[in-house]
Amino acid sequence: MKQNLFLVKIGGNVLDDPELFKQVIHTVASASGKLIMVHGGGRELDRWSAKAGIIPQKLNGRRLTDAETLKLAVMVYGGLLNKQLVAELNAAGACAIGLTGADADSVRAARRSSAETDWGFVGDVLPGGVNADLISCLLERGMIPVFSAITHDNEGQLFNTNADTMAAEIAVTMSSDFRVVLLYCFEKPGVLMDAGDDTSVIPVLDQAGFGRLKESGIARDGMIPKLDNAFGAIGRGVESVRVLHAAALNDVLNGNAAGTLLVSEMNGLEPC
Amino acid sequence: MKQNLFLVKIGGNVLDDPELFKQVIHTVASASGKLIMVHGGGRELDRWSAKAGIIPQKLNGRRLTDAETLKLAVMVYGGLLNKQLVAELNAAGACAIGLTGADADSVRAARRSSAETDWGFVGDVLPGGVNADLISCLLERGMIPVFSAITHDNEGQLFNTNADTMAAEIAVTMSSDFRVVLLYCFEKPGVLMDAGDDTSVIPVLDQAGFGRLKESGIARDGMIPKLDNAFGAIGRGVESVRVLHAAALNDVLNGNAAGTLLVSEMNGLEPC
Repeated sequence: MKQNLFLVKIGGNVLDDPELFKQVIHTVASASGKLIMVHGGGRELDRWSAKAGIIPQKLNGRRLTDAETLKLAVMVYGGLLNKQLVAELNAAGACAIGLTGADADSVRAARRSSAETDWGFVGDVLPGGVNADLISCLLERGMIPVFSAITHDNEGQLFNTNADTMAAEIAVTMSSDFRVVLLYCFEKPGVLMDAGDDTSVIPVLDQAGFGRLKESGIARDGMIPKLDNAFGAIGRGVESVRVLHAAALNDVLNGNAAGTLLVSEMNGLEPC
Repeated sequence: MKQNLFLVKIGGNVLDDPELFKQVIHTVASASGKLIMVHGGGRELDRWSAKAGIIPQKLNGRRLTDAETLKLAVMVYGGLLNKQLVAELNAAGACAIGLTGADADSVRAARRSSAETDWGFVGDVLPGGVNADLISCLLERGMIPVFSAITHDNEGQLFNTNADTMAAEIAVTMSSDFRVVLLYCFEKPGVLMDAGDDTSVIPVLDQAGFGRLKESGIARDGMIPKLDNAFGAIGRGVESVRVLHAAALNDVLNGNAAGTLLVSEMNGLEPC
């Protein structure tokens, strides 16, 4: 019987909201059992880019990363946000250790190549690129590995990497040894039928249902790549994937349902 | 019989010089046996401070660290420089892991209090503040822990910490389990009798000799706190302390003498 492992992805809406941040820290530090965190922080990167006189370049909401932007991403994600998160988790009684993919070669990636777009120093996690041995060792010692979305190619090049995909790839790899529950915290209480109505959460969504939400325009903008990533982890060993508001994290870590559960097929579950 | 452990402190003169940086990376990654690195990077912090419109405030060469400067220090030391160093070491075949003192509570500090000066968020390593168990565990797994000079108080506050003292405190703590050789790399080939003559290296220097160098003005400016830190580690268990140019690191790691060996008393050695 495999042990449970929660993989909690948080982003800017948590990192930017002191009350919510405090709540998430407390929840994660109090969680029993094994847990990994992955964080983004694009809004903080935007702020520091502005201070340093760099104008962020994005395509479909994703950041083009030139050499200077990469430096700032390593500084903001791998430095500032990661260490603030680690320091707060430890203050709350956890033993958190902050990592980029470069640290102990924990997450190896390849530079994204595209005929249409020069993404710059954006890296995508390689198949087999997640160092499960290292992560398991840290977990066995009672630590919470906290990953910022920076990877490397093991040839000296760091990369800016999408935090959602990094979370999915770590979740998939760790599934060989653990029963992994992947939790994407974001600014809404789940996938909504009506973007203006926070009570319209879809409790269970399958791939076909997601296709219909895209066609009808209900799922749009940043939600589409986020759900693409989330569905990408299903069927590759991850026990379950959930999209939820960070405020509901405590409920879910304690075994209650919240947000939207993503499944490959409805298999008799009530369709959306 | 204790195992050898090298503790290598590098600073701006290595980080700012691509050729020397490459050489140090190669030397460290090729070293047999156990090794820890500690790095500073004040010059890079000065450059990013300028970009962000912050004017560095220093007293006797030491940085006053207000809240904004602390953020940048965490970004530059704990993020940019630490991860570049780790990525390059791993590319050269090592298994390096980057840490701040906050990570897994590896180095705990207290805010520096002074009646005369408000140092801001500057922390000094606490007695017993170095987590030897964690560091030993990483070393046993064949890793090179790479510390940036950021610490925490385990109550959520990060601190900017002097890299030389951090190196000394880690060296002292690790001495209970290892035969620690502490190596301070800097921009001169050792302690010089004549600052203008790089061939005037003093091969062995004791505390009394250092006192004479201070009185005569031969040791001055940044050299004084550096040697104070280095001498501070002697007599507290560290096997030997050496001040050397980074270019001589390979020699010393291979058992040859280079730079200036610091000893508590000459005990029959030729005085300077």
